[in-house]
Amino acid sequence: MGGDDAPAQPVAAAALSSRTTSIDIALVGRPDELRKLLATHEHAPERIEIVAASEVVGMHDKPREALDAKPDASIAVAARLVGSGEAAALVSAGSTGALVLASATHIPRIAGVERTGLAAVYPTRQREGGSSDRFALILDVGATVRCRPRDLLFFAYMGHAYASRISKVKKPTIGLLNMGTEPTKGDDGLREAYRLLAGDPLLAFVGNVEGCDIPTGGADVIVCEGYVGNVALKMAEGVSEVFSGLGKWAFKQNLLWKAGLLLLSGGLKQLKHLTDYREYGGAPLLGLERPVIKAHGRSGAGALGNAVKVAAKAARDGVCEEIRAAIAAFEQREGDRGVASGDA
Amino acid sequence: MGGDDAPAQPVAAAALSSRTTSIDIALVGRPDELRKLLATHEHAPERIEIVAASEVVGMHDKPREALDAKPDASIAVAARLVGSGEAAALVSAGSTGALVLASATHIPRIAGVERTGLAAVYPTRQREGGSSDRFALILDVGATVRCRPRDLLFFAYMGHAYASRISKVKKPTIGLLNMGTEPTKGDDGLREAYRLLAGDPLLAFVGNVEGCDIPTGGADVIVCEGYVGNVALKMAEGVSEVFSGLGKWAFKQNLLWKAGLLLLSGGLKQLKHLTDYREYGGAPLLGLERPVIKAHGRSGAGALGNAVKVAAKAARDGVCEEIRAAIAAFEQREGDRGVASGDA
Repeated sequence: MGGDDAPAQPVAAAALSSRTTSIDIALVGRPDELRKLLATHEHAPERIEIVAASEVVGMHDKPREALDAKPDASIAVAARLVGSGEAAALVSAGSTGALVLASATHIPRIAGVERTGLAAVYPTRQREGGSSDRFALILDVGATVRCRPRDLLFFAYMGHAYASRISKVKKPTIGLLNMGTEPTKGDDGLREAYRLLAGDPLLAFVGNVEGCDIPTGGADVIVCEGYVGNVALKMAEGVSEVFSGLGKWAFKQNLLWKAGLLLLSGGLKQLKHLTDYREYGGAPLLGLERPVIKAHGRSGAGALGNAVKVAAKAARDGVCEEIRAAIAAFEQREGDRGVASGDA
Repeated sequence: MGGDDAPAQPVAAAALSSRTTSIDIALVGRPDELRKLLATHEHAPERIEIVAASEVVGMHDKPREALDAKPDASIAVAARLVGSGEAAALVSAGSTGALVLASATHIPRIAGVERTGLAAVYPTRQREGGSSDRFALILDVGATVRCRPRDLLFFAYMGHAYASRISKVKKPTIGLLNMGTEPTKGDDGLREAYRLLAGDPLLAFVGNVEGCDIPTGGADVIVCEGYVGNVALKMAEGVSEVFSGLGKWAFKQNLLWKAGLLLLSGGLKQLKHLTDYREYGGAPLLGLERPVIKAHGRSGAGALGNAVKVAAKAARDGVCEEIRAAIAAFEQREGDRGVASGDA
């Protein structure tokens, strides 16, 4: 029921998915409305189940208050389905705050995780030849505000698991977002996070990275606290918006520029596609026992279908299990160290 | 002696300034080298004094170690000149870290200030008609890592004074950089900073702003801790770099695009000029008793001349005095409140 054009787009995505994949989908929301919409699409009925939820959290509702007031909200019902194991993964294009909160409430956290990480996929500079198959995964971008050094290490495990299993990056490089590249940069917390990351046997840590290294491709996974990740991502969004606005303005200025822009229109479309991170569908919420994918509010059926595929792949390929194993191994090492040094 | 083409550009800037303004300049560095360069430029000798400093902090030196090892470094000598009041303001295109540290060491802080703020000037979206006379001042972008709520309030006073006196914005609007616009966003520190800013009688506080509001012009002055401001600014730099790289790539792809880019070249030059924050010369370091301006390392004589003008204007128009008065008034109110509530 969530998203700018819901439930029409989610229903269309489920219908499409039922015909083209072997994924079973539970559509959670007002049954009459969903059934009526579903009837307008060709679909495989055996792959789609409708689960009743009478209420909806709106994009402008305050998440905590709305979830308290609406226990039968579709996002809460869906999160409970996933929490209980009846469903394997959660996809939503609705309110990010409500998705994060309902997931944290109803889906168990991986042992050791105190902060979940919402990861954004950001396209990086094109490779020679024009193909752009590189993305940076930035986390957290808004599920948490502040983090302990250990949370940042766990974000690195989450990003490592997601990038290697979903994006098929063999040994994803990890960067710590900081104010400079030297290991001494930042405050005590950032320096401690650097030490943890640098000493980890699992991770390919490349050291501190700066804001400019995100779009230019300095690392496959960039870890930071949510406050910083959120601001950086939205700053990039604002810069892109201003660039595209300047193009519109230039178009009106003179015939020369108008002609130039028309000749370039194919390239500009490609540019927009490459640089608009919202086109890349889902942002995973990581740190829970099952995958949760936040699709952009404006997602159409195609983008939502992609998000469903990514969620199914994350569940099937054991992204959460890999995160759990990495954290357990870290805590084992910490415990051993404690015993060795007589702390225990 | 600092900057990518130093001391050639600083000397050229001093020569130019001596002929075109009534500002007296002390050039600090190796006397023979400076004198030889100065002789190659037409200049007004009565306006230029050469002050000897035998050493230089390089762009890649670690600031603290370099300043400890080189007490006669040009930046240290210059900061001492300003600290003692022999000079009214400091301009440097050298290492930012060394400038911040030398200034903090030798120039007294304004009473009450614990954290200095390095402010960057960022161009915002064009107005209708194509003129771009709007800029956002963001502070801090790197002098501090973390801040107390009170530091953020004082950054707002600094930005207010600078924007109103230097950029001539009558009543500069102030935004607090956060993860969303609601007053409850962020952590306790950000909520307390919101409360302080919203309750201040001097400031035109517009509330929380997001990363996207920096380039789109959401506020004249944007306050944040240095970690966040630094990352946001560098992220924007990276995005601009990728955009310009894509332009170069498109140029090589096909004749249509090449022709389009050639027709647009005038517009692209304007775009580059408008969106490259480094063209806007000086970034003020605020919170000290005298103005300090960091010019970009790549600054030529023209940009350095502008930085000198801005520094002189800041000194003459009492930017530091206004910051001092605003902080004193705040502490007076706090004191009165303490007395009234029996805290004192």
